[in-house]
Amino acid sequence: MNKSFFLKAATSVAFFVSASAMAQQAPLPVSENTIKNAAMLRDKALKSDSAYEILEALTTEVGPRLGGSDKEAEAIQWAIKRLNDLGFDKVYTEPVMVEKWQRISERASIVSPYTQPLHITALGKSAATPKGGVTAEIVHIPTYEALLAADPAKIEGKIVFISNRMERHKTGKGYGPAVQARGKGASEAARKGAKAIIIRSIGTDSHRLPHTGGVNYEEDAPKIAAAALSNPDADQLERMLKRSKPITMHLDVQTKFHGEVEMANVIGEITGREKPDEVVLIGGHLDSWDLGTGAIDDGAGVALTVAAANMIQDTLQMRPRKTIRVVLFSAEELGIIGAKAYAKAHEADIDKHVIGAESDFGAGPIWALASKVSTDSAHVIDKMAQIMGPLGVVRSARKAYGGPDIGEVGKLGMPAVDLMQDGTDYFDLHHTADDTLDKVNPEHLRQNLAAWVVFTYIAAEWPGDFR
Amino acid sequence: MNKSFFLKAATSVAFFVSASAMAQQAPLPVSENTIKNAAMLRDKALKSDSAYEILEALTTEVGPRLGGSDKEAEAIQWAIKRLNDLGFDKVYTEPVMVEKWQRISERASIVSPYTQPLHITALGKSAATPKGGVTAEIVHIPTYEALLAADPAKIEGKIVFISNRMERHKTGKGYGPAVQARGKGASEAARKGAKAIIIRSIGTDSHRLPHTGGVNYEEDAPKIAAAALSNPDADQLERMLKRSKPITMHLDVQTKFHGEVEMANVIGEITGREKPDEVVLIGGHLDSWDLGTGAIDDGAGVALTVAAANMIQDTLQMRPRKTIRVVLFSAEELGIIGAKAYAKAHEADIDKHVIGAESDFGAGPIWALASKVSTDSAHVIDKMAQIMGPLGVVRSARKAYGGPDIGEVGKLGMPAVDLMQDGTDYFDLHHTADDTLDKVNPEHLRQNLAAWVVFTYIAAEWPGDFR
Repeated sequence: MNKSFFLKAATSVAFFVSASAMAQQAPLPVSENTIKNAAMLRDKALKSDSAYEILEALTTEVGPRLGGSDKEAEAIQWAIKRLNDLGFDKVYTEPVMVEKWQRISERASIVSPYTQPLHITALGKSAATPKGGVTAEIVHIPTYEALLAADPAKIEGKIVFISNRMERHKTGKGYGPAVQARGKGASEAARKGAKAIIIRSIGTDSHRLPHTGGVNYEEDAPKIAAAALSNPDADQLERMLKRSKPITMHLDVQTKFHGEVEMANVIGEITGREKPDEVVLIGGHLDSWDLGTGAIDDGAGVALTVAAANMIQDTLQMRPRKTIRVVLFSAEELGIIGAKAYAKAHEADIDKHVIGAESDFGAGPIWALASKVSTDSAHVIDKMAQIMGPLGVVRSARKAYGGPDIGEVGKLGMPAVDLMQDGTDYFDLHHTADDTLDKVNPEHLRQNLAAWVVFTYIAAEWPGDFR
Repeated sequence: MNKSFFLKAATSVAFFVSASAMAQQAPLPVSENTIKNAAMLRDKALKSDSAYEILEALTTEVGPRLGGSDKEAEAIQWAIKRLNDLGFDKVYTEPVMVEKWQRISERASIVSPYTQPLHITALGKSAATPKGGVTAEIVHIPTYEALLAADPAKIEGKIVFISNRMERHKTGKGYGPAVQARGKGASEAARKGAKAIIIRSIGTDSHRLPHTGGVNYEEDAPKIAAAALSNPDADQLERMLKRSKPITMHLDVQTKFHGEVEMANVIGEITGREKPDEVVLIGGHLDSWDLGTGAIDDGAGVALTVAAANMIQDTLQMRPRKTIRVVLFSAEELGIIGAKAYAKAHEADIDKHVIGAESDFGAGPIWALASKVSTDSAHVIDKMAQIMGPLGVVRSARKAYGGPDIGEVGKLGMPAVDLMQDGTDYFDLHHTADDTLDKVNPEHLRQNLAAWVVFTYIAAEWPGDFR
């Protein structure tokens, strides 16, 4: 996932007593049969490696799949085939235009007074340095806020180093404050005359695998190269800077923009038996960063939502009342591009979107269920949480956001839930080469799948309105 | 440290009752004053960051220091200055000739039927591939033993992949069996016609930071390029191979040999007050692999032994009876080259070497003390272990080896002890880019220093003979 989610979701989480219990009119109940089926699906999911198998195949056979690249195009074909092989009722795509960016090479070293190579990665969509790189003194700026306040005379002609550290937290709330250095640091540094910017990785690990992620250039500023140091390299640079001698760095980042290319959101549907035009929207993003194989970001989300829909289809004798639509979004990492295209394409039929949910926070256990639904339908979410109770899931009072992609549709008024995952370790791996299958615990994936089948099935079966 | 230690030290460890208690003659005791001083030094060390400060400076100011490289030469100058600044009584060097090997570049990718980059490192002293690399089918061989047994017809023209996994253990005993693939695999594969060899990293982590380490070419075999995959990449390749389609890899390893250069062992001494020509020999190796900054391998050993000698010198009013000689060995990683030069240069005065010990197994806590000394002097080691008791150190019945460097001198008959460290996590970092200062726990380093001052001081003060 990219940064937007955390900037918006830094709100508190607590146990919840549904307001629906006090509602005037008797709300439309969840039928006993629906509850029974949901519990049965949950128990089946706890024994199923179907999500893991999809994830294993995507990461092994396709691997890295940067938005707009040939590898994303390969992933799209892979997904179409997989959804067809699984027997989805409908499989189709919707076009997404993506500006193709390519990482070519990236190198950095301290050249004076010490000589050492550093582990860096170009930030996503970074501009290149001049051929051969730049060599300049480092100016150490602790945070993005300090950069805003800094005197341009101190920055002019130098390489800015922002050293802020991300804090570890189950909800990932340390990401929002830290990531501003990545998103907005480059343009601010450039406006003050910097030759380039390097940041401490926005991540919580201590390995020499730097974290990439998108940089956003503003139009009024020169586009300077932007890169992240691994956290041990940032520590090393800070130790050098403490010695109070000028530290000179050589930075060579080569990247290329290739213009717009057509990619696609891949969509699979389980057609509703009674109201096929009403859809429960679930999904994740098919693209990944280019460094890892996109196992936790967001292969897990792709695998879980595809497997959940498929299990409901394969297990029950009847299709649920409404359609389950799984959307595998294009180019999320490059700016939620696929989801924006989906929202635009579906503006006219937005009222047919019953409710939405996304999986894009790794593969840690789900521990809470949050919602943004009408008072009269909150009891349905309470019931879902109750059925998820044996999985260790509690009801959250936090207002659901929907996730970075589904949130784009949520902005148009679609209700949403968040199946909140434990993200304690997520930012150890996020946007690094270490985002690989070995980091995924198959048992956690089964727990996730169990929660997803409960939500998806009840949402598609309950006859009422979440609006 | 390199591989020799573990091949030799796979013996059992147990609590120990000294045979000296049953000796016929009353052994020469450790004086009460010596015991008191040792305990005082131990308690002082537990509050001292002197070892950490040396380690911080070496890794920050010098960083990577591959044997035979300009960086090792820089480390030698750094060490001479440091020992002088610390006030050692004598600081000098002894020459060591090292064949200079250089890593230039290394790239690998799967090109068919999947297309993905892999994280690799050239093994130390690896030959290069032809310019532009080699492209060939992978043949999967589970172990070195299986390679010995393999039909050359299956290997001819292919890239051999040995996938054996190293097991994690406190004593590091999983290293010996696994590392044969690294040391001997290349020549065996070449004899059977392989174009190159790649191995699963000899390491216990799951990060995309491959483990380098020396390859030993035999004279009767062509020299083919040898590289290690990171463990997640080895997992990925194994998953691909399970799909039972031919897997084609492109491997491009560029390295260069520059001939012999002169490096040096750096030696610092605290001159004995009574028997200055008798020496207690301690040390570690100053060189490191080029990927990390050599914090645990073996900056920690350098820092601990220098700090231990220095603390004894700075704390006590009198020098110990015998000389403490700290040797910082050159080019251990490339074949224990500095230690072999030392042993050769000191063959004639080997009987003046009272006892030796080395720190070269990272920076984990010391948990046991082993010895190779005479029966009549074993009670002295028992006493050392007793004084180290509050540090969590037990007496081991294992015969001490001395470590990879000191062991070379031990071969000539010098008694030795092993201050055995907990190596549970050592092979997560060993020979990788992740061998950096942030991995060292300052509290563990203080505990190590406390054990080192006890051993070093008593060994230099006790008037008897360990032979």
